[in-house]
Amino acid sequence: MGAFKFRGAYNFLATLAPHERRRGVVAFSSGNHAQGVALAARLLGISATIVMPTDAPAVKLTATREYGAEIVLYRREEANREAIAREIVQRRGATLVPPFDDARIVAGAGTAALELLEDAAALDAIVVPLGGGGLIAGTAIAAHALDESIAIYGVEPQAGDDFARSLQRGERVTTAVPQTIADGLQTTSPGELTFAIAREHVRAVVTVSDGELRDAMRFAFARMKLVVEPSGAAPLAALLQGRIAGIAGKRVGAIVSGGNIDPARYARLLGDDVPAGDVFA
Amino acid sequence: MGAFKFRGAYNFLATLAPHERRRGVVAFSSGNHAQGVALAARLLGISATIVMPTDAPAVKLTATREYGAEIVLYRREEANREAIAREIVQRRGATLVPPFDDARIVAGAGTAALELLEDAAALDAIVVPLGGGGLIAGTAIAAHALDESIAIYGVEPQAGDDFARSLQRGERVTTAVPQTIADGLQTTSPGELTFAIAREHVRAVVTVSDGELRDAMRFAFARMKLVVEPSGAAPLAALLQGRIAGIAGKRVGAIVSGGNIDPARYARLLGDDVPAGDVFA
Repeated sequence: MGAFKFRGAYNFLATLAPHERRRGVVAFSSGNHAQGVALAARLLGISATIVMPTDAPAVKLTATREYGAEIVLYRREEANREAIAREIVQRRGATLVPPFDDARIVAGAGTAALELLEDAAALDAIVVPLGGGGLIAGTAIAAHALDESIAIYGVEPQAGDDFARSLQRGERVTTAVPQTIADGLQTTSPGELTFAIAREHVRAVVTVSDGELRDAMRFAFARMKLVVEPSGAAPLAALLQGRIAGIAGKRVGAIVSGGNIDPARYARLLGDDVPAGDVFA
Repeated sequence: MGAFKFRGAYNFLATLAPHERRRGVVAFSSGNHAQGVALAARLLGISATIVMPTDAPAVKLTATREYGAEIVLYRREEANREAIAREIVQRRGATLVPPFDDARIVAGAGTAALELLEDAAALDAIVVPLGGGGLIAGTAIAAHALDESIAIYGVEPQAGDDFARSLQRGERVTTAVPQTIADGLQTTSPGELTFAIAREHVRAVVTVSDGELRDAMRFAFARMKLVVEPSGAAPLAALLQGRIAGIAGKRVGAIVSGGNIDPARYARLLGDDVPAGDVFA
């Protein structure tokens, strides 16, 4: 469904017991987790209810609905999505699928790094987008099980550097909802589990500006022919900006995911002009 | 450089003798062949001059220039590009790189099918975009050298069905310059060599409308996360429309190339609305 979130959601749902599957699952998400849970539920024959904000990207709302999930809309300014989800969970005896802070979600997300290492063979470093930390935790565990020397890097939006600050402080920090074009990385604090794994396994977390995310999206469009949403462009942005020290000349893998974005918004972010820059960059 | 044309151009240039390389190469093209020759020349240290129309897509002009080629612009309505190119060839003793009707160009283009068959293993059919016939001729020869039972299909724009009509007639037909969004498939007649190969090896040629090309581009954007220019979307369009008889349930490979398009034009063709349709299509 155009983002790594499917991997965690599918792994979570696949491990549910038959009586849990019958009662369905619930998730809250404005985007890729919603689609991931909806598609995994459809494939496994489980009913899914997703609590989504009214301002979620239309392309993500549409896809979630088309995968067959029931959507419960709420207004960000008026309601608490977790409360709405928990109420449905209690009423129906359904299972809540957490967005990232869960061992099954982390393990599922880690399969992307396994496939990357299968395809690319030995890597010196892996760079991933960083929101709540599910992907970086799974990536770190998967990669280090195969080779402890692989350096793991996370890339956050500058406006939402809760993970970088938490690692610096040595404890989980909570920030305000970050204002960034990376709608998939608007988390306000690391997960408990994902933070513990990151402290042990992650080499560094770097940040990129919205302008740098946009430049990376344009590079992906013009030179890689890949549609990447702002959140997914974070690792590419960090690499194009030389933001990660000490990896020049090394074999570096980047997990560039997802690619779910409204056509009109994509067009606005690409801009009208022909992307410039060295075609050999 | 975002299109299969590089393969033929590189193969052609790589087979030039040292004295030919020193005198440089010349090509005429409004798009992907221009970029392919420019990049191949740069990689092989050969100087390249490309004759391009003033209305060539800006992204293709920019890339050709950035690859280091000298560009000679002409107005479509006022000048003949072949005459301009041949004049430069004579004056400099340079070598003209033909866009498709040449054994070296055909052989280079055929490497895409070789890689497709390496990656996808046994296929029942391969579907390719069809302009002058370089790609379909190379695809057919490469595929049939490995397995004569693979059905080869070409897809043309409805407005430019010179190849379909030529095969029907049993001889090469020349049409007017077709009005189509597929700027890479605006050829007016099959090549002599490519037509001979196609007559022997191609199962069928089908056509798609500009609207169907646009729908396929939107499908590639929304579901495959791939940036595809109108010409490259032709095989996908034919498959999504069920235009090719007898391949349901078969293992079908499609060569989807290229992806060189101005951001503003891409945005216009995608449209503002969220692509609809079955996400499982």
